[in-house]
Amino acid sequence: MGKKKTTKKRSSRRGKNGQDTGAKIKGLADSVVKSASVEREPAVDIPTRALSNVSFNKKTRYIEMGDRFQQRNLFNYGQAKRFMQTMLVASKCKDLIGVDKTASIRQIYYLAKHTIKGTKEKTFDNQDESDPIIEDLEVALNALREELHVFAGSKGALIGEITFIDSGDTIDATKLGSGGYAIPSIVEPSVIQFKKCNAKYVLHVEKDTVWRRFVEDRFWEKHNCILMHGGGQPSRGVRRMLYRLHDELKLPILTLLDNDPWGYYIYSVIKQGSINLAFESSRMAVPDARFIGVSSFDYDRIDLTDDVKIDLDANDIKRAKQILNYPWFAGKKHWEKEIKQMIKNGFKMEVEALCSKELTFVTEHYTPERLKQKKYWLD
Amino acid sequence: MGKKKTTKKRSSRRGKNGQDTGAKIKGLADSVVKSASVEREPAVDIPTRALSNVSFNKKTRYIEMGDRFQQRNLFNYGQAKRFMQTMLVASKCKDLIGVDKTASIRQIYYLAKHTIKGTKEKTFDNQDESDPIIEDLEVALNALREELHVFAGSKGALIGEITFIDSGDTIDATKLGSGGYAIPSIVEPSVIQFKKCNAKYVLHVEKDTVWRRFVEDRFWEKHNCILMHGGGQPSRGVRRMLYRLHDELKLPILTLLDNDPWGYYIYSVIKQGSINLAFESSRMAVPDARFIGVSSFDYDRIDLTDDVKIDLDANDIKRAKQILNYPWFAGKKHWEKEIKQMIKNGFKMEVEALCSKELTFVTEHYTPERLKQKKYWLD
Repeated sequence: MGKKKTTKKRSSRRGKNGQDTGAKIKGLADSVVKSASVEREPAVDIPTRALSNVSFNKKTRYIEMGDRFQQRNLFNYGQAKRFMQTMLVASKCKDLIGVDKTASIRQIYYLAKHTIKGTKEKTFDNQDESDPIIEDLEVALNALREELHVFAGSKGALIGEITFIDSGDTIDATKLGSGGYAIPSIVEPSVIQFKKCNAKYVLHVEKDTVWRRFVEDRFWEKHNCILMHGGGQPSRGVRRMLYRLHDELKLPILTLLDNDPWGYYIYSVIKQGSINLAFESSRMAVPDARFIGVSSFDYDRIDLTDDVKIDLDANDIKRAKQILNYPWFAGKKHWEKEIKQMIKNGFKMEVEALCSKELTFVTEHYTPERLKQKKYWLD
Repeated sequence: MGKKKTTKKRSSRRGKNGQDTGAKIKGLADSVVKSASVEREPAVDIPTRALSNVSFNKKTRYIEMGDRFQQRNLFNYGQAKRFMQTMLVASKCKDLIGVDKTASIRQIYYLAKHTIKGTKEKTFDNQDESDPIIEDLEVALNALREELHVFAGSKGALIGEITFIDSGDTIDATKLGSGGYAIPSIVEPSVIQFKKCNAKYVLHVEKDTVWRRFVEDRFWEKHNCILMHGGGQPSRGVRRMLYRLHDELKLPILTLLDNDPWGYYIYSVIKQGSINLAFESSRMAVPDARFIGVSSFDYDRIDLTDDVKIDLDANDIKRAKQILNYPWFAGKKHWEKEIKQMIKNGFKMEVEALCSKELTFVTEHYTPERLKQKKYWLD
């Protein structure tokens, strides 16, 4: 024990991106100094993160931010605190990049919180104040949060036909037993580099319990793929990993989700991005992702019994109708049919319900058949 | 693709335990048949899983079940359905053991659900009916749920100085990058076998964001340990892994948790077991576990500022007082002092708050010092 460092060789996070982001923060700081030196009021332009400044781009096929922004001024009573908070969080991120460390959004809050000298005023009273500042910086600097060296809680795991390097360690994802690789929050190229890939596609499932069914039945081995789950709504780390696997390795992303509004929404976020994080879409959304099931038509197609039915409640129907009106679903006949059929059915179905036919029905029949029957895939 | 099986060599889950559990289920079924054949009413004895049948055993130092049980009879109007449900779930578990597969508690529900011939009656109407039956079987057969081949959602990850085999794959936990090994729900010896261990102890932290701080700072390497987190209240898989690391490899289990009633409770569950799962304590509780921080006295001991304070609310105080009265804390002067000091402080503190001194304070100062200063450990 003690302070002797025995750190193994590992790749530095200060890759090209890290340097870029550090330079961007320095640029922000320089502009403030420059304004002050010529006796102009320091200000920062922060693109507006609100529904009113978000739209679906039919060409890129993802949700993106518009070009509206707000100026944040130092000499404005209502903006001064947020201006100073922005500079403070930016300087903490710069420090992190400088020492090649990362911090959680909670750790950022504690790092940046202090009492302003000569007052009783705190720089931040709670994390609800620092989290939006981190997002402000992301949009203002056009840098992913991960590039600012900030992480959040992680979710999800993967296993399958890929070998990659994570922080200098080579990970062969065909040799991870039943547990799998826990997907971290930061999966940027400076941390993770793909090395060898025999997979033909990525199969992304919603829940870890479904993922375990596929892992136990060694689906990834029989079908040459990567199995991934996001523990429900996927985290940024999981979405960014899907994006990179698709973008860099050209792997198709196939999703197998519950037949309910929540499943549709997960698909929508993976494919088109989310409204809240519209500014990240270009680096996270996978417009080519496909939905291979469970479909509202499966009840008849594969002859299920009413043991699989879960009645829709009023909220499900409301959500389904909202999703039907999303501009990226609205124009698509097959999606309209799919969602309307769920409402007509009056019930929803989980992937796990396919067990009611046979424990391994989903891995030995349903999914292999869906992989062949592309006509049933939803775009 | 297709049906050709190319399954690699892997260890079978049908180890000694699996066979035992299968035999136990058969014994249960045989007793029913035997009763019927001599025209006696079939019945099963189910130990009572209620607070009234749970107590703290000062000798074993964990929470355990008493010897009260209820008879579940087939020819009793109020018990017949549950009797039949018990047999049905038992038969599904027997099937799983027979084919060396596992199923989630949700999958068990779907496997066992069907309409009883000639009626409109379902064997199960929802999972709230099947989950308690699984627990009934655990206590009736004295078998862990994992030995019945049933799993639940998984949480938690590990990294560090250990090599183990999971389903035939050798996992060197020093070479898992930043992500780590996702701890599965079933970590029984039939699935996971320890191979080589250079660790001197296990450091268990509460949250993945704290765990990442330790992983990034390569604490496990500098201090020869295993780093583990449970994503909050640890799952059965995590608790069972801690138990096995302690029981088989004789590793001390050291916990670093938030200074709040929730942190105390997590410690209590790891150490003494939980009231709900008292029947599992002997195979999950680690009475020798130690609490190394964060302590209510740390505010003064390590000279923190009020930036780390989070005010206690009425519920925190109520919970703290309840915990103070737990029989396994009540007798211990140092725990009484610890909990009373938190109430006196009027605030709680998170592990992440230690960042307010310095990003790596927790990994480079606080924890290394606590490891040396055993006088501050709480038993």
